[in-house]
Amino acid sequence: MNIRPATQSDIPQILTFIRELALYEREPDAVLATEADLLRDGFPENENAPKRFHCLIAELDEKPAGFALYFHTYSTWAGHHGIYLEDLFVSPAFRGQGIGKALLTHLAAIAVAEGCPRFEWSVLDWNQPAIDFYHQMGALMKSEWRGMRVSGPALQSLART
Amino acid sequence: MNIRPATQSDIPQILTFIRELALYEREPDAVLATEADLLRDGFPENENAPKRFHCLIAELDEKPAGFALYFHTYSTWAGHHGIYLEDLFVSPAFRGQGIGKALLTHLAAIAVAEGCPRFEWSVLDWNQPAIDFYHQMGALMKSEWRGMRVSGPALQSLART
Repeated sequence: MNIRPATQSDIPQILTFIRELALYEREPDAVLATEADLLRDGFPENENAPKRFHCLIAELDEKPAGFALYFHTYSTWAGHHGIYLEDLFVSPAFRGQGIGKALLTHLAAIAVAEGCPRFEWSVLDWNQPAIDFYHQMGALMKSEWRGMRVSGPALQSLART
Repeated sequence: MNIRPATQSDIPQILTFIRELALYEREPDAVLATEADLLRDGFPENENAPKRFHCLIAELDEKPAGFALYFHTYSTWAGHHGIYLEDLFVSPAFRGQGIGKALLTHLAAIAVAEGCPRFEWSVLDWNQPAIDFYHQMGALMKSEWRGMRVSGPALQSLART
């Protein structure tokens, strides 16, 4: 198994992974992202343009097996950025071989190397097998916190208030 | 009331706000951030260094009354960055005058202007007055999702796995 940072040439594969993950989450039509979006946001050609996400590719026998896509958070208590794992996915054909765990530990090592105080992600509250797995890896659940989101017409409306 | 982007000269005030917010959350000793941290991460002098957070200052009668500190998320479904509000705080002396709401609507307008599909933040599940207020503003709760976090010795340990 090999884990490496994604490059521009991985964009079609990354989009395939994103769509496979959406299918797994039973939201196959939710993916509006295009290859051009991922190029602009993950691999900006202008050096002054912000890199909006980072991505790792896991390979098994030189075939793409899974990916981890993350961005940086900020903690005003720690005075330092952290890592937020947005997407973690292993293709069905490659499951049960520790690839998901290898991606998580690789990201933990990146977090430590960058001096990040926190490595975070989200889980569905009914996905007990995932929660148990994450607990085993040393993660704690932020049980009292709930995410709030404004989007779509409600966001347009709030902006005009 | 005036809302403007923070500048380098606001750093002492931003740190004061961060500490006041931690005190309000009954965690006065949780703030390890220094002015140097906020300078490096929010106002990097090297143009190639990433800007880790953004900050708005609300002023009333030309006095600093509150702040909103945010960073950018990434949605692989939308193929676009979003806005995450990490800290929102209005000094006790300036409350009840709509400053918190003005900061939220200002941020919603920034999100719309940048083409962000989502404007998000977190709330404590027992803070019903806050939840009601956010619902009134058009926000939805991501009820099924829980945040997971690895930090401290557990993060060091996971990184060495």
